[in-house]
Amino acid sequence: MHIKLKDLQETHKRIKPFIHRTPVLSSSLINEIVGAEIYFKCENFQKMGAFKMRGALNAVLQLSEEQKKCGVATHSSGNFAQALALSAKMQHIKAYIVMPENAPEVKKKAVKGYGGKIIECKSNLEARETTLNKVVAETGAKFLHPYNDYQVIAGQGTAAMELIEEHADLDYIVAPVGGGGLISGTALATHYLSPKTKVIAGEPMGADDAWQSMEKSELIPQTNPQTIADGLLTSLGDKTYPIIRDLVEKIVRVEEGEIVAAMRLIWERMKIVVEPSSAVALAAILKEKEKYKGKKIGIILSGGNVDLGNLPF
Amino acid sequence: MHIKLKDLQETHKRIKPFIHRTPVLSSSLINEIVGAEIYFKCENFQKMGAFKMRGALNAVLQLSEEQKKCGVATHSSGNFAQALALSAKMQHIKAYIVMPENAPEVKKKAVKGYGGKIIECKSNLEARETTLNKVVAETGAKFLHPYNDYQVIAGQGTAAMELIEEHADLDYIVAPVGGGGLISGTALATHYLSPKTKVIAGEPMGADDAWQSMEKSELIPQTNPQTIADGLLTSLGDKTYPIIRDLVEKIVRVEEGEIVAAMRLIWERMKIVVEPSSAVALAAILKEKEKYKGKKIGIILSGGNVDLGNLPF
Repeated sequence: MHIKLKDLQETHKRIKPFIHRTPVLSSSLINEIVGAEIYFKCENFQKMGAFKMRGALNAVLQLSEEQKKCGVATHSSGNFAQALALSAKMQHIKAYIVMPENAPEVKKKAVKGYGGKIIECKSNLEARETTLNKVVAETGAKFLHPYNDYQVIAGQGTAAMELIEEHADLDYIVAPVGGGGLISGTALATHYLSPKTKVIAGEPMGADDAWQSMEKSELIPQTNPQTIADGLLTSLGDKTYPIIRDLVEKIVRVEEGEIVAAMRLIWERMKIVVEPSSAVALAAILKEKEKYKGKKIGIILSGGNVDLGNLPF
Repeated sequence: MHIKLKDLQETHKRIKPFIHRTPVLSSSLINEIVGAEIYFKCENFQKMGAFKMRGALNAVLQLSEEQKKCGVATHSSGNFAQALALSAKMQHIKAYIVMPENAPEVKKKAVKGYGGKIIECKSNLEARETTLNKVVAETGAKFLHPYNDYQVIAGQGTAAMELIEEHADLDYIVAPVGGGGLISGTALATHYLSPKTKVIAGEPMGADDAWQSMEKSELIPQTNPQTIADGLLTSLGDKTYPIIRDLVEKIVRVEEGEIVAAMRLIWERMKIVVEPSSAVALAAILKEKEKYKGKKIGIILSGGNVDLGNLPF
C-alpha cells in the first residue's frame, strides 16, 4: 500500500489541531428498524460542513514555504472547493477554484465566503482542465485533486480512525463512494486499525461507476451521472480505485427513493441536517437490513451542506 | 415561590435516569454575527425531540400506585401529547390524549407510536374540555396540564439547570414563551442557581399574550394566535404567569420572517433540525444584537419536531 499506518497517524496528528473531533451519535429508533447497533460519525458537524476539510487541510499543511507563496488550485463545484478555500485561508495562502459558470450561486457564495478566488469556465471537462492549467501556469499555484491524491486520501481516512478509536469492535464500516477519497481512506484506516471490520460502500444506482469497476475488475469512468447525491457524481481515480478494489468488501447500489427515505429518517429521528450523499450509506444498510441483525456498524455521515431552498421532501 | 431550589434538585435527580443529558453546542459563525458567545442547549436532541419530556416525566414519576393503575390524560396536539404518551409508556401506564379531530395526521401518528390512546374532539376549547372531563370521569385517569402545573414547570426547569452547571457565568438565558412552562422553569432555575443571569423570553408577534400580560401587569389570554411557531400558540396560565412576571427580565417579540431566518441560520450553520418555536429565542437576540456585544448567552433550543413536508424555506 502506498499509504502506511504511519502516514495515517502522522496525518491525524498534523490536522488534529485544526479540525473538529466530530461526535459519534446513535438513534435507538434507527437501531430498532435495522435490528443492529449503528454508530454515526457526524462529519456534517466538521468545519465547513463535510469530511473534505480533513483531506484538503492535510495537503495544504504539507506545502513547502515556496509553494505557500503561490497558493493552491483545484476544480470543484462541491465541498472540496469550500474545504480547500477554508484550509488555504487558515494558512494565509491563496486558493484558486475553477468552477463551471452554471454552478449554483449558493456554492459560489460559500467559496467566496471562505476567501477563495473563483475562476469560471464552461461546464465541460475540457474547459475545466484547460482553465485549471491556465490558472496554474499563470499563478504557480499547486494543483490539488479533490480525491485522487494520496495526501487527500490519508486526510479523509482520519474520520474512520477516530470512529475506530471510540468503537474498536465494529463488524462493518459504511461510507458513500463518489470519487473514492472517503471510502479509500476509510478502507485503509480500517485495514490497519481494525482488520476484522468489513468496509462497505454505498453508491447511487444512477452513478454506479464504482460498482461497475468492481464487477469488471477495471476502472470504468462515470458517464452522465444522475442522482440527487451531488457529492457522488465523479469517477473513481487511478489512486482510489486500486485501494477500493483491494480493501472494500462490496459496493451496494441504492435507488434515489431509498436515498431520500434514509435522509428523511436521519433528519426526523436524529434531528441533524445531512446532505443526500451522506444518506447513501444508511440507505445501503436499510436495503439489506436482514444481513445486519445484531451487528455493530459504523456509518460515516459525510456532510451536511444542502440547499434548504431545494429539498427533496 | 411555590417551587424551591430543593424541588428543582429533587426533580432533576428523579428524571435524570430517564432523559438524555442533551449537548450544549455553539457556532463560531453565529457568534461572529451577534458579536457574543452563545451556548445552545439542544433539547431538540431530547427524547421524543423536545424539552416537554422533562416535565411530563416528572409528573408521571410522582403518581401514586393507585393513580398509576388509572393512567394519565391531557389535551394537546403538540409535543406535550407525545411527551406524556412516551413517559406513560416508560412507566407502563395508560395515556389518554384528547386531540382536535383536525390535528395533523403526523402528530396523531407520533402519539400512537408512543402507545398513547387518542380521543378526538371538535376543534374548540369547549369541546376539548368537555371531552377531557368525560375521559377522566370514565377512566379515573389523572389530568396533567401541559404547562400550568408545578411538577411540569419544575421538570422544564432542569434544562436550564444543566446549562448553568456547564456554563456558570452566563449574562443571559433566553427561551421561547408559549404557555410559559419552559420559561418559568428556566427563570426559577436561574433565580436559584445563577442569580446574576438575566432571563429573556422570545415570543412571536402574532401570539404575544405574554408581552401583553407583562405590559398590563395582568394575565391577558391569547386569542386567535397566528404564527409558524406552533408550540407557542397557547395562553399563559395562572401558575406560569406570576413566575414570569416576577423573574423574567423582558419579553422580546419577533416577526414571522425573523423566526424563519433564525431557524434557517441554525439549520444551515449548526446542521441541526430545530422547530420554529426553538428559533424564536435566537430571533429575539438577533433582533437587538447590538445589546449583546461581548456577552455570554445561553439559548434553550426547545425542540426539533417539524414536518419536513411543510418547511418555510
